[in-house]
Amino acid sequence: MPNTETEKLEVEEAPANSCVFCAIVAGESPASVVHADEHVTAFMDLRPVTPGHLLVIPRMHAVGLEDLPEELGTRMWVTAQRLARALRRSGIRCEGVNLFLADGEAAFQEVFHVHLHVVPRFPGDGFRIDAEWRVRERHELDAAADRIRRALS
Amino acid sequence: MPNTETEKLEVEEAPANSCVFCAIVAGESPASVVHADEHVTAFMDLRPVTPGHLLVIPRMHAVGLEDLPEELGTRMWVTAQRLARALRRSGIRCEGVNLFLADGEAAFQEVFHVHLHVVPRFPGDGFRIDAEWRVRERHELDAAADRIRRALS
Repeated sequence: MPNTETEKLEVEEAPANSCVFCAIVAGESPASVVHADEHVTAFMDLRPVTPGHLLVIPRMHAVGLEDLPEELGTRMWVTAQRLARALRRSGIRCEGVNLFLADGEAAFQEVFHVHLHVVPRFPGDGFRIDAEWRVRERHELDAAADRIRRALS
Repeated sequence: MPNTETEKLEVEEAPANSCVFCAIVAGESPASVVHADEHVTAFMDLRPVTPGHLLVIPRMHAVGLEDLPEELGTRMWVTAQRLARALRRSGIRCEGVNLFLADGEAAFQEVFHVHLHVVPRFPGDGFRIDAEWRVRERHELDAAADRIRRALS
């Protein structure tokens, strides 16, 4: 006789079961879905920056850019680009669009199933970004470029 | 005899000639280039959010998501994903990565040659985002989803 108690625990401990986005993909959590195909799902963000704010996710669980297959990433991108175009034609206020992806807690990722935000924008919509921007010297930029080029190869 | 004065004016008025990113692609403006292939170029942002901040652009001039061919968009995406991975291995401080694209002035686009930001992040790096986030009712989300679905088809 199989140890059903152990099996049940194993299932409950699987990452997919504790992931709110996997629950949406599985149809176990409510979502206002705009697009779903074999690879990606897109639905309304529950706490939007502006009305019309969408999330595009892979159906397969991936945490971020490190474990997301490139082929699946490109499907997320194409879906986001089509959604951006659709937003501008939807009647929802949309004079611009931001695409935003947060990979890692330090980058403000909150749900650890990779997701690409598609945010309709208009003047005075309340979205703000701020940083300690300043023009850098060419030698600083060249030094950074050199480190990144070496890491790429 | 051709009207060289008119021809010269036409060339000067072409969008490519007034575009700072087209000038980088053409090798006419300095840039700290990290990657260049037939389709896309990636280089250091002159005024980075954090050291290591990169821009990925198509070599062909496109203003934004409306006129960017999807095939070229996917090449930008794949390059950005590879750069994100490279940043984490580069020795530059990088505990997370943001991808960010501004499509249109209302979305904070400043250079009107489409570009995808790849920004290394770490706690306390000074980058902030803010918005009037609030959880929306399901009926509001469903209504928005319905409008976007109709615009998609």
